[in-house]
Amino acid sequence: MALIVKKFGGSSVATPEKIMAVAKRVLQEKNPDDKIVVVVSAMGDTTDELVGLAAAITDKTSGREMDMLLATGEQVSIALLAMAFAELGQPAVSMTGFQAGIATNETFNKAKITGITPDKVWQELNAGKIVVIAGFQGLTETGEITTLGRGGSDTTAVAIAAGLKADHCEIYTDVDGIYSSDPRVVATARRMKEITYNEMLEMARLGAGVMHPRSVELGKHYDMPIHVRSTFTCDSGTFIREEYTMEEKEFVIRGVTHDANVAKIAVLGVPDRPGMAYKIFSALAEANIDVDMIVQSVRALDKHIIDVVFTISQGDVPQAGSILEKLNAEMNFSGLTIEEQVAKVSVIGAGMLGNPGIAAATFGALADAGINIEVISTSEISISCLVAADKAKEAVNAIHNRFFPV
Amino acid sequence: MALIVKKFGGSSVATPEKIMAVAKRVLQEKNPDDKIVVVVSAMGDTTDELVGLAAAITDKTSGREMDMLLATGEQVSIALLAMAFAELGQPAVSMTGFQAGIATNETFNKAKITGITPDKVWQELNAGKIVVIAGFQGLTETGEITTLGRGGSDTTAVAIAAGLKADHCEIYTDVDGIYSSDPRVVATARRMKEITYNEMLEMARLGAGVMHPRSVELGKHYDMPIHVRSTFTCDSGTFIREEYTMEEKEFVIRGVTHDANVAKIAVLGVPDRPGMAYKIFSALAEANIDVDMIVQSVRALDKHIIDVVFTISQGDVPQAGSILEKLNAEMNFSGLTIEEQVAKVSVIGAGMLGNPGIAAATFGALADAGINIEVISTSEISISCLVAADKAKEAVNAIHNRFFPV
Repeated sequence: MALIVKKFGGSSVATPEKIMAVAKRVLQEKNPDDKIVVVVSAMGDTTDELVGLAAAITDKTSGREMDMLLATGEQVSIALLAMAFAELGQPAVSMTGFQAGIATNETFNKAKITGITPDKVWQELNAGKIVVIAGFQGLTETGEITTLGRGGSDTTAVAIAAGLKADHCEIYTDVDGIYSSDPRVVATARRMKEITYNEMLEMARLGAGVMHPRSVELGKHYDMPIHVRSTFTCDSGTFIREEYTMEEKEFVIRGVTHDANVAKIAVLGVPDRPGMAYKIFSALAEANIDVDMIVQSVRALDKHIIDVVFTISQGDVPQAGSILEKLNAEMNFSGLTIEEQVAKVSVIGAGMLGNPGIAAATFGALADAGINIEVISTSEISISCLVAADKAKEAVNAIHNRFFPV
Repeated sequence: MALIVKKFGGSSVATPEKIMAVAKRVLQEKNPDDKIVVVVSAMGDTTDELVGLAAAITDKTSGREMDMLLATGEQVSIALLAMAFAELGQPAVSMTGFQAGIATNETFNKAKITGITPDKVWQELNAGKIVVIAGFQGLTETGEITTLGRGGSDTTAVAIAAGLKADHCEIYTDVDGIYSSDPRVVATARRMKEITYNEMLEMARLGAGVMHPRSVELGKHYDMPIHVRSTFTCDSGTFIREEYTMEEKEFVIRGVTHDANVAKIAVLGVPDRPGMAYKIFSALAEANIDVDMIVQSVRALDKHIIDVVFTISQGDVPQAGSILEKLNAEMNFSGLTIEEQVAKVSVIGAGMLGNPGIAAATFGALADAGINIEVISTSEISISCLVAADKAKEAVNAIHNRFFPV
């Protein structure tokens, strides 16, 4: 007997036909005594359509009413999927977030799950039913309907799996697992059998789009293995878990990512006095602007002057620009440049720590390809290089080929 | 200060523009210290669309999953209407059936309200908000979402009004009140200022379509006045209440209705022995067929033979026919006819009891118009005559003119 939570996203349940296909898919792999929970998102474009209705009425929607509105999307999907199971002869029952015992805090639009009380879920599982649960939603202590925001349905699935102490949680997507790099960029990218929570989080942070970090963090917290796999095939995908099993250890590097949503800011000629860097970065932090790669260098010829280079998301450029202009008026920089024609290329691998050759191999791969590195930053399990935007794909391929020789 | 519950149906909230118009309409009449609850149905064709989605998946939908699906329709409306109030500067909050404390039994698809616990509603009303409540839905003791079936949103409105001890409940419709007859049939039909619960129930039973009897019964039970009025004008409509106020007493007759959904069945030549009529009507009752007007007559020339004539709904004709054919094989009637070219014309008025002239005036009006009466039946507050279907409208006008002279 296995207890498995399976999550299907909006595109997998976009039409009644696709909903029926999901039901068949689930039954195809179900052993007679398996206990199965299915978490689903809203059908296809439903959420956009609901947002459109609200936009036709007001442009200042309250979080509460928006959640009341959006939560209907998943409620439609769960009812239809439960009907599909019944049509196929499989007893099933749908549950809204509150029926499944998903408690959240009161932060409408991006509520956080505060607890799972899956009594009703257990009751129905023990009665031999498949339980179909609405993703993306919950209920506050005071009985308000909330939605979880980005990555919400994956988060629901992992949270329910943790609450039920399931064997693992399966996330069905339109790709068949986690790849060593984006297959659209690197033709030889390999599907990983396994990857650790930390590596997955680092990959997501550095530009890999398959999994939202939120659900991975929850999986890590509860040590709930997450199986990322294809909606369309029965092949095994990638398991995200705490540690590899033996056979996956051959590759120290687990992924090569790139992120084009980067802008490089150079603040030149800052007097080298205590608190100058603090002044710049605290002003940006106050405006909620995330600063990523930071390099501070003292000038060789004038040791009292420093240059500061860092990166931010391109969306933050206008606001950061005006903050820095204000500081410039006060601190009188010798130069201030903002450049968006850059991209961040990263290698990720938990085994990197005990392997000092990784950084050298990365830089060597880029050098051999004739690609200039503008900024470098490292974490415990990643190395990132800022390169010219038009060299990004070439850089990813060069690094990937070095670590995953064909 | 007044506490009023207002209900708007699906066609009143069919589009974002109409929802905004409803919000404006409500605010137009609201005094600053009024407490207002608005109950709404699903937008326009939403319910049909949801039924269509289910039909694309299965033709054996369970009651529970259908209710899970359909309840989303009202949840969309309430969120959008609450947003519309906010857009107009009026604090408002939406509530699903369960949030408003609407408890029902477990009869999915046509659940009955078992209680109202409007604590949350009071809390928000006292905070100065308009509370927008989803009609047509509730929650069972075990946390299952139910819908109330036909007349459900009106029933929600009256139940909430009773639970809050509101001053009255307003039902907004596309007609501007209850008329003495269908204005499409009788050009001189008059809008009633008042009508009693019993008269309204009798009119609904006898073919008037404005109000579903269920909500009127609930209003009668809790003595909650129901104000039926137009969505489009601010005119006062018709109050349904226990007793008239003085000025409405001038008309003993409150309405003239007709119902074309009638079939006349004649069972001729039944031996006049105890239990013969019982045999016929119990067979029909077992098949859940409602029998309406019944006339049993002993033949003048042969006192041992009776003829039985009665009416049923046209939808029940095929089933009733086969039941009666079976009985015929056993009892050997001398004749059995089923006729659908008939209509029932009725006059309704609570004042009829102390007014013996009403029946005579009704029959006289029909006689003067040369219309033959096939069957007559009476209740405490109504007289019904079966006439040929093609004479129905003429009959209604003849009777109406007699009681409401122009």
